[in-house]
Amino acid sequence: MSSSDIFIGETIGTAVLILLGGGVVAAVTLKNSKARGAGFLAITIAWGFAVMTAVYISGPLSGAHLNPAVTLGIAIKDGVWDNFAVYIAGQMLGAMIGAALFVLAYYGQFHAHLTDREIIGDTADKPIEGPHNGNAGPVLGIFSTGPEIRVVWQNLATEIIGTAVLVLAVLTQGLNDEGKGLSILGGLITAFVVVGIGLSLGGPTGYAINPARDLGPRIVHALLPLPNKGGSDWGYAWIPIVGPLAGGALAAGLYNLAFA
Amino acid sequence: MSSSDIFIGETIGTAVLILLGGGVVAAVTLKNSKARGAGFLAITIAWGFAVMTAVYISGPLSGAHLNPAVTLGIAIKDGVWDNFAVYIAGQMLGAMIGAALFVLAYYGQFHAHLTDREIIGDTADKPIEGPHNGNAGPVLGIFSTGPEIRVVWQNLATEIIGTAVLVLAVLTQGLNDEGKGLSILGGLITAFVVVGIGLSLGGPTGYAINPARDLGPRIVHALLPLPNKGGSDWGYAWIPIVGPLAGGALAAGLYNLAFA
Amino acid sequence: MSSSDIFIGETIGTAVLILLGGGVVAAVTLKNSKARGAGFLAITIAWGFAVMTAVYISGPLSGAHLNPAVTLGIAIKDGVWDNFAVYIAGQMLGAMIGAALFVLAYYGQFHAHLTDREIIGDTADKPIEGPHNGNAGPVLGIFSTGPEIRVVWQNLATEIIGTAVLVLAVLTQGLNDEGKGLSILGGLITAFVVVGIGLSLGGPTGYAINPARDLGPRIVHALLPLPNKGGSDWGYAWIPIVGPLAGGALAAGLYNLAFA
Amino acid sequence: MSSSDIFIGETIGTAVLILLGGGVVAAVTLKNSKARGAGFLAITIAWGFAVMTAVYISGPLSGAHLNPAVTLGIAIKDGVWDNFAVYIAGQMLGAMIGAALFVLAYYGQFHAHLTDREIIGDTADKPIEGPHNGNAGPVLGIFSTGPEIRVVWQNLATEIIGTAVLVLAVLTQGLNDEGKGLSILGGLITAFVVVGIGLSLGGPTGYAINPARDLGPRIVHALLPLPNKGGSDWGYAWIPIVGPLAGGALAAGLYNLAFA
Repeated sequence: MSSSDIFIGETIGTAVLILLGGGVVAAVTLKNSKARGAGFLAITIAWGFAVMTAVYISGPLSGAHLNPAVTLGIAIKDGVWDNFAVYIAGQMLGAMIGAALFVLAYYGQFHAHLTDREIIGDTADKPIEGPHNGNAGPVLGIFSTGPEIRVVWQNLATEIIGTAVLVLAVLTQGLNDEGKGLSILGGLITAFVVVGIGLSLGGPTGYAINPARDLGPRIVHALLPLPNKGGSDWGYAWIPIVGPLAGGALAAGLYNLAFA
Repeated sequence: MSSSDIFIGETIGTAVLILLGGGVVAAVTLKNSKARGAGFLAITIAWGFAVMTAVYISGPLSGAHLNPAVTLGIAIKDGVWDNFAVYIAGQMLGAMIGAALFVLAYYGQFHAHLTDREIIGDTADKPIEGPHNGNAGPVLGIFSTGPEIRVVWQNLATEIIGTAVLVLAVLTQGLNDEGKGLSILGGLITAFVVVGIGLSLGGPTGYAINPARDLGPRIVHALLPLPNKGGSDWGYAWIPIVGPLAGGALAAGLYNLAFA
Repeated sequence: MSSSDIFIGETIGTAVLILLGGGVVAAVTLKNSKARGAGFLAITIAWGFAVMTAVYISGPLSGAHLNPAVTLGIAIKDGVWDNFAVYIAGQMLGAMIGAALFVLAYYGQFHAHLTDREIIGDTADKPIEGPHNGNAGPVLGIFSTGPEIRVVWQNLATEIIGTAVLVLAVLTQGLNDEGKGLSILGGLITAFVVVGIGLSLGGPTGYAINPARDLGPRIVHALLPLPNKGGSDWGYAWIPIVGPLAGGALAAGLYNLAFA
Repeated sequence: MSSSDIFIGETIGTAVLILLGGGVVAAVTLKNSKARGAGFLAITIAWGFAVMTAVYISGPLSGAHLNPAVTLGIAIKDGVWDNFAVYIAGQMLGAMIGAALFVLAYYGQFHAHLTDREIIGDTADKPIEGPHNGNAGPVLGIFSTGPEIRVVWQNLATEIIGTAVLVLAVLTQGLNDEGKGLSILGGLITAFVVVGIGLSLGGPTGYAINPARDLGPRIVHALLPLPNKGGSDWGYAWIPIVGPLAGGALAAGLYNLAFA
């Protein structure tokens, strides 16, 4: 794959991932959305199919990493770092484009939500909208993740564990398929792995398990002039970067120890 | 494929699509249905499997476009327009047959619902039944889509974005499968793409993402002599035609730029 | 396949189908079940995976019809009736065994439910338990289907339409797979077709779409000495036999016209 | 496969299984979890994808039994007992590691839940947390299974029936795939079988259907110094061991009679 194909593939793929992934949280959270209140299961299923859709669209161009923790894990496993920065750059750009796109698709809903006095006055009863403290704005949870209980070591641990499961599943995929040429199944299986991780390990922090998925939309949240949007919770932002990267590295190390 | 196979395949396939797709909204909305209140997740899952079922049934005859936006995207991508009108004609006829069939299957439920004074008197608490304004009848949402907030540019944007994701996923499918002959998986993957788009981008307008899916049943709604059915909201009808076609064209352009 | 393999395969497969299919309705309906109130989506998903599990278990022995309407459709399509009666006999025996097994698995729950004065005194608020009239017992809905609105022509139409979609999807499966040897996917696809039909067309009658699925457990309901079990609603029993058989024949006719 | 690969594969795979499987019950049950109240369907879907993820990760090393009942069934079917104890040892160690990991990921949630006076004072309204009697602690249901109605013969019967379906589906998988080399699909199909069994047969006892899945986390529950954790219900612990093993043996016997 050429560097430009990788960059374009990761940009398009991660844009689709964040458009659909952030989109479902907007759909379930915002006022005047037909999906309002559809629940955590709906959110996790849609995130899984967001991954699947993005994998099949970008796979032929870039191999569909879509996640710096996956790129890191593959680089450690293979010992090859050639296009590392190209992957990350495409992922970050794509994540920001995706965030802009879900704001566009839900523009009226964002506006109606953020100008509703009752909603803005009391956001504590909207569990999906982020951490229960004063650092986070009322719609930040649509853009980025946040902890239900803010304890650094535990928040890090949860992100490390969740990402390690994801990256280990990605790295072992080739072993299941060895010589059969069925890698077309990979996107489907990865989708269901992500649904499983979301349902099982998403409770404490909202499962970033992907630094670009969290940081890209957080930057867009900070930049966009939405009314009453509140803070972007930059104090938490390093955890969904460091945790997933550590989890990806851990998975690659375990892979090289036990599976290689 | 012969033109008659294409016409028959698209007619049968789109009839199945609308029978099952409209059927689930009837099931979740109407009085005296065992599925009443089953929620948005149930609706989106059923629409996905409606697509899947229709794809496998009609695929061997027509290649299973089932959607003018898909037909347009494929035509632009390939530069071939030979059976364009045949596809559209089959899709429109099929969509109208499908709408007639779900009315038949739910005939008693439609009648009970539309003659219930409490329901007819107050439809504002049935979010799935369509836009929150006076132009739409109480069961129009079973036939066609409608916006939660009626703003032309945003409604168009949402339909363009959702359809572009769908058509891009359809166009890139061949790249994932190149030479492996596994296209049998295509229907399953497309089903999950549609579930994902529905959950993630269905909130503002109810995700037509298919002109035939919206226009065909709207015509049937206008023609059928259901009691108290209300208006067919023709003022909105052009948006789920123009938006999806623009989205399909956009996806084909992006495909030709980045993937061809 | 030998006749004895067919008989054994259909018996085991249909027993698994009804064990899991009736099991989920018991799980969602009965007192002292952890799944009580899990909803219509849970029921339809479980029925789909009941079909899938039964297909993979019995497929190597009998080809996994598991449904007289499927057996009839295949016989009409192929013009071959050699083992027709063997298939039906295995399906009926299996359906009765499956019903006995879910009663065994939920024995304490059935007893607690049927001896609860509040439940027995007022069953009208349990929508899944069957038709809203005096002919049906309070747990009959776990065994067999029943209409929400009792109108013969509509109940028949709904069952005909639902079964025609199912059997058409089964008959066209071979066309999608022609020469690729991927029929292992068939069970998965059929499962999702059944989930789709359940969600979309299950509202009016509870989607029997299979005469053995309805009649076998109804006989077991009539025979078992459960306390306060109420009537077996024999007046309705012919509809989920005749409707599905007509739907299967219709699908085979359509197949021979359009696809053969 | 070497004994050490089997041991490592089963340890890693069962750890992933219990991490995700116990994780979802924690997610749905505990205070300050974003998934609290997500319901039984969410639990069963996540357990299915927990199995799938664990199968694909450990399959290349150990063949992914992950369950002593599966190991027993395969041993009886093949008459080969060479690595029997290695499989069981890896499964038990993995189950304990997995339990420790979900406690780590949900540490703050466990603590908040178990120090909430209202929750500790009244656990009867948390149906998923286990049997309705005085033997079980308030979070034991996250670790191990328990009956809604405590009747030995029925609890055993439910576990036997559920496990027999699971193991029969696992044993017949090879027959569907004979010669096609598509066993990569096995993990996906097994996932959906487990979702089906959970929804359909999980109501009475919470579907252990796997002795390691129940005993390993129960030991961890007994050992961990969680505040107010309550008892580990050792009186029930033998049933989710004996029942699943009997079910696995039954399935292997049926397989050898009817399918071999």
